[in-house]
Order: sequence, then C-alpha cells, then structure tokens
Amino acid sequence: MEIQQVIHELSQRARRAGNAMSRVNTGLKDQALLRLAARLEASHEQIAAANQKDLDAADERGLTGAKRDRLRLSEKVLADLCQGLRDVAALPDPVGEVTKMWTRPNGLRVGQMRIPLGVIGIIYESRPNVTIEAAALCMKSGNAVILRGGSEAFHSNTCLAEIFQDVMKEVGLPTDAVQLVPTTDRAAVLELLKQEEFIDVMIPRGGETLIRFVAEHARMPVLKHYKGVCHVYVDQHANLDMATEICVNAKAQRPGVCNAMETMLVHEQVAETFLPQVAAAFQERGVSLRGCERTQKILGDACTPASEEDWGAEYLDLILAVRVIDDMSSAIEHIETYGSGHTEAIVTDDYATGHAFLQDVQSSLVLINASTRFNDGFQLGLGAEIGISTSRLHSFGPMGLEELTSKKFFAFGQGQIRE
Amino acid sequence: MEIQQVIHELSQRARRAGNAMSRVNTGLKDQALLRLAARLEASHEQIAAANQKDLDAADERGLTGAKRDRLRLSEKVLADLCQGLRDVAALPDPVGEVTKMWTRPNGLRVGQMRIPLGVIGIIYESRPNVTIEAAALCMKSGNAVILRGGSEAFHSNTCLAEIFQDVMKEVGLPTDAVQLVPTTDRAAVLELLKQEEFIDVMIPRGGETLIRFVAEHARMPVLKHYKGVCHVYVDQHANLDMATEICVNAKAQRPGVCNAMETMLVHEQVAETFLPQVAAAFQERGVSLRGCERTQKILGDACTPASEEDWGAEYLDLILAVRVIDDMSSAIEHIETYGSGHTEAIVTDDYATGHAFLQDVQSSLVLINASTRFNDGFQLGLGAEIGISTSRLHSFGPMGLEELTSKKFFAFGQGQIRE
Repeated sequence: MEIQQVIHELSQRARRAGNAMSRVNTGLKDQALLRLAARLEASHEQIAAANQKDLDAADERGLTGAKRDRLRLSEKVLADLCQGLRDVAALPDPVGEVTKMWTRPNGLRVGQMRIPLGVIGIIYESRPNVTIEAAALCMKSGNAVILRGGSEAFHSNTCLAEIFQDVMKEVGLPTDAVQLVPTTDRAAVLELLKQEEFIDVMIPRGGETLIRFVAEHARMPVLKHYKGVCHVYVDQHANLDMATEICVNAKAQRPGVCNAMETMLVHEQVAETFLPQVAAAFQERGVSLRGCERTQKILGDACTPASEEDWGAEYLDLILAVRVIDDMSSAIEHIETYGSGHTEAIVTDDYATGHAFLQDVQSSLVLINASTRFNDGFQLGLGAEIGISTSRLHSFGPMGLEELTSKKFFAFGQGQIRE
Repeated sequence: MEIQQVIHELSQRARRAGNAMSRVNTGLKDQALLRLAARLEASHEQIAAANQKDLDAADERGLTGAKRDRLRLSEKVLADLCQGLRDVAALPDPVGEVTKMWTRPNGLRVGQMRIPLGVIGIIYESRPNVTIEAAALCMKSGNAVILRGGSEAFHSNTCLAEIFQDVMKEVGLPTDAVQLVPTTDRAAVLELLKQEEFIDVMIPRGGETLIRFVAEHARMPVLKHYKGVCHVYVDQHANLDMATEICVNAKAQRPGVCNAMETMLVHEQVAETFLPQVAAAFQERGVSLRGCERTQKILGDACTPASEEDWGAEYLDLILAVRVIDDMSSAIEHIETYGSGHTEAIVTDDYATGHAFLQDVQSSLVLINASTRFNDGFQLGLGAEIGISTSRLHSFGPMGLEELTSKKFFAFGQGQIRE
C-alpha cells in the first residue's frame, strides 16, 4: 500500500476513534491506564528484547553517551513510566466539566463544557517512553492519538504501542485511539501534516529543527515552543543571598533544559555588591559569565565580554549572559527585545516592584522570588505535562490534561426562537 | 517604499504598541471607546463624504443590491456602531483576571492570569463598520490590531481608522495599536500573513474563498470558520408544535447566515405526523425541501429527492435537506459524517435523550429545545462577537473579549529553588 494511503486511512480511523473516545466515561479510561501499568510490568522481558534491537542498531551506528542513553528503557525508566500511568489515572478527568453557566433574559440557560480536542498527532524523537506517556495523557483526556516516534526507537515504540492497543481492546475501548505510524519512512511525516481533516492539532517534541519542520509544513494548528531564553532580574530591593541561591539554581541545577536561566539582569544599585558574590557562587558550579561593559568593570577577569548575540542566546550549558541595567523598565525592555516569552523571575523584597513586574511581563510563567526551573507541569501542580507552549494561542506555558481539551457551548431551552 | 517594508515596519510597530497596550488600565481603554463614539457622531459628515467616494466607485463598477448595501455607512449603521462602542466600554475587561490560584507543597503560590494575545490581524471584506467594531474589541482586550479591509471600502476604512487613531492619541494611548494597511495592493495581504514574528493570530472575516486563502498562507495561527451545516434533530419524544416553531425559525428567520439550519433529521416514529405539519409551515415561508426516500414517501410532491451532496450542503438559502432516521445514534452518526461542528439542536421532551444528545454531540453549540439561530456572541450573552470558531483550538464557538486573551502562569515565592 502507498504511504499516502496508509497515513490517510490511519488518520481517518483515528477520527472515528476520537469521536467514540469523546463519549467514554472516566472509569473505563482509568481502568485502561491501571491495567496498562500492570501489563507493562508483566511484559518487561518482551519490552527489554524489543529495546535491545534498537540499542544494537544504535551501537552499529556508533551512537554513544546521552544519545544512546535516551533510547534505553531501563528498569528504572519502566518503573517510572508505570508510576506515571497510575498518577494519570488518579488525576481528575477534565472532560465534561461545566466551567460556567448563566441564564439569558429569554430564559435560555447557557453553559460551557469541556470536550476533547479530537485527534492529536505527536511527533517525537528518541525517547521511547514518550510513546506511553503522551498516549496516556491524550487517552485520559478523551482524545485519539497518532504517534510518530524516531526511527532509532522503532522496535521499542512498536512493542509499547502494541501493548497499549491490547489493553484498549481488553477493556472495550477503540484500539484506533492509540496508533503508531507503522513505518520509519520519512515521507510519512509530511503526509501526516497534511491530514487537517482528521488531525486537530500536532504537538512536536524534540529539537528546534524538528519543531520548525512541523510548524512549517503542518496544515493543522501546532502547539510548540522553540526555545527558552529565560531571565532572572535582581532588583535593587532584592535579598541578595536569596538572589544568589535562585540564580545559581536557575542556571546550574540542570543547565540543558528550556527553563534554565540564560541571562541575568542586575539593578545598577546592587551590582557592585551582588555581582562579586554571585560570581563566586557561579565559579564553584563551573558557570562561565559573559558580561556587559558595566559587569566587566565590576567583575574584571571573572567574566568575558558579551556580544549582541549573547542577549538572545539559549546556551543550554554552563554559560550565562549578565547585564547591569538602570531600572525595572530597562529590565522589561531587555526581556521584550531578547526574550522568548518562556519564563522570567524577579528577586525583590519591594511589594510594588514585584507586582509591577508580575503585571507587566507577559511570559508563560512570571515568578517573584523563585527559580525559573519551576516552569514545568509537575512543579506547578498540573499533575502532568505534554509540553510547554510559548505561543499564546490555545495554551501558554506547561500543558496538562486540561490543555488537551476545548470547550463547547450548550443551551437548555424551552422552545426559544430568535425574534 | 516597497510593500514588503511597509508591512514589516507596520507589523513591528504593532508589536511594540501591543506590548504597551498589555499594561494599560481599563479606565483609559473605556475612555477611548466612549470618546470614539462621540467623535464618530460629531464626524458624520466627514464619514459620509468618505463613504460616498466608495459608493461612487461601486456605482461605476455597476455594484447593486446587497453588495452595494454592505458598503453603505447609513445614519442607522453609524448610530448602531456608536451604541456598540458604548456597550463594549460597559463590558468587563478580561485582562488581569486571575482565573485560578493554588498553593504547592513547597509554599509556592501559583496562579493563572488573563493577558492579551498581543497583535491581532483582521482581514475582512466589504462592510466598513468592521473597521471600528473589530478594532474596538481588540483594543478593549489590550491587543494591538492590524486591519486590512476590502479595497471597495478603502476610503471609508481610512477615514474611520484615522478617527480611531486621533482618539487614541488624545487619551494617551499608542496610535500604532490601531493601524489600517495603507494600500489596496493585494500583495500586502500575503506580506501580512508572513509576519509571524509580530502578529500572533489572524482572524479572516468574509467568504470561504478569503478564509481558505488566509488559512493556507498564514504562518501564524488562524481563528476561522468555513461553514455552518447546522442540524435540528426532531426526536420521537418531541413536542411537535415546538419542533415546528424551532425548525421554521432555524431555517427561515435569516437563511443566509451560518447558524441557520441546513438539514432536518426526524425520528421515524414521528415522521408521519410531523413531516406534513412542518412541510406546510415551510411552504408558507417559501422553503423548498429535499428529502430522503422515506421523506419523499410521506411528503410526495411537497419535496424533491435529496442527493448525497445535499447532506453536506450549506445552502444559505430557503432550501432544506430532510432525512428520516431510525434513532438518535443514527442522527449523531449523520451529524458526525456530514456536519461542520457548528451548531446542532435536538427537540425532545425526554430527559435522558436530551442529555445524551448534549453529551455526545461535539459541536460549538449544542441546544436542547431552542433554535440554532442562538449561536451568536450577543445571543449567548458574551456581550460582543468578533467571529465564530469551528475548530476546537484556542476557542470553539462565538468569540468575545475573553477569546481575544490568553493566560499566563505566575508564582509568588519566598526563595523556592528546585531540589
């Protein structure tokens, strides 16, 4: 069968399954999640065997280090995956929630009710556990999902998706609600991106190249984020010990992730005290600093000069851009010019300054006196996360179950007609 | 100046103005709206003169009837426009609303707050009043707007946009927050659709050709609806007099709009009683019927045969497709196969049937015992309407002020860092 036909039919089946899933009650969906956790545990040998095929192929291609690690479904990864499924089963089901209800002058009672988005496409790279994690969130929120994983994890993904489908069948849910694209042919991705009639939204998860490719070619809406150029602004009224702890945590606790700080902005009135203190702490953690002219004057050899490119850079590494600024409005102007709308924090003890920053900065998470590293669905208490959106449409920030739903209007009438 | 440069700079200025608008308080925005209403009333001669230029050009091109009418800024249209502005000023401002707030185990207090979308592009056809209506809604919700009206209304649109900008300047708001594309060159539209860096969302308003063009070429998200193939399902437990009233209203009260009924589905157990009754009422209103075989058997000459194409047709005219179906699940299957997800109503006196329909049909508005004609922002009580979305992303159904906003996360910390 032609690849076009394969993808078209798979997408069409997903639409039908999505229609059916939108009517399934929570109990049955939770039953599937719990049974899936048990089944994954019982199938650990089968999973390890499939995973080994991918690892062998990776070794043949000379893959090492983090790239090989990401492929590996270790006992620990599998145990976390199963715990994750039990956690998702315990989360409230957003579908059917009536978020508002009101009555019109003519007696029409109008409300809004959460419904699933329909069919969600997930295009992801190496880590095979995404197959289960993403599909579980889509399923719990009443959606059908089409999964397209990386070719390097194809055997693992296929094994996991088959187990998921078996469980769906056993509990009486449509197996077409969880489908893996059954080929590693790259043409399949382009075909998927054309199925706007059957797929409601595409969520790419991976590097910027993948995300830009999906955004460019998709005919349906895409939920995405390109990068996180996150800022901490240390205000003149900051508690400088707290500021040091927050800045070190934001930069160095896990530098390779999107919510790590990339630029630190420091109010000129505290720069001379704060910069030497924080620079010492950074040095201990192996962070190298790139400073503006004023920073260089204070820190001397402890930093190298920052160029214009440094202000917009997402290092994802133990490197930090540092700039001394005149006041909060310069800080906000800097953030609006160079930031990516991901996460910004202020450290201040001043009530008015903190609230003005919170009000005036329009990033997906704005924090007062806390680390940027909290921009994460689990840390913020959503209970789950399928990604972080940095565009303001549909969803802004971490996306949990609720963000995989929409709302329909409904109305209870007694024969009302338009005059 | 090249058209590319014109559009690029205009969009860039809109982004800056949008940033500023997101920080403006409600009082100032409402003051601008009220002053604009007064100014439009005082400028009626200037507006009429500009409008006359467009009307003269229309006459030269031989435009008549509804097409010419839509261009005309009559006293009545202008009065309605000013009243509309006063109504929008009286609506609550969605910006800054905290929709939720909770506390994490580590003491971090997390919330979500409404913020503007940023920069909204509106691409519309003939009616020049959209210039004011759409810009007012975008402005009240803290957004900057870029307007691109039809070339046939260019003089009217320019006059109205200039008045809006004058008022913005007077009250101290950025004039770049309300910009009209200063050329009728069609190339400008394509350039606008490329400015994804500066324009957050595009809202096309007009015919299907325009909407499809925008959806195909826009690099930013598009809020749109293509068509309304709306259904009324008359259940076996329907009050048949109520069903007749609702069906006639849904079809004939204003047949040329997207929330008019296009297909009527009738349960077989009431078809023999209901169809002759409703057919007589339709005949009085000049509605011609296209029926399935079972409908034809009952109505004979009172209807013509429906073909497969009739089920998905948006007539926007006094024509109705009619189908007798076995039960509610066949009705839902029909709606899922041929519907457009816009508006569906059931007429029934049975509690369980009504609620099952409400639960199982995922259209932007689902009604029990009321006319489909209520799918409208004003009728449902949103207080305003900038369009109706039939895709489930960001917004589904009529869009008012709230739908022109997004939500950011925020967090109040006391020095929290990630462990």
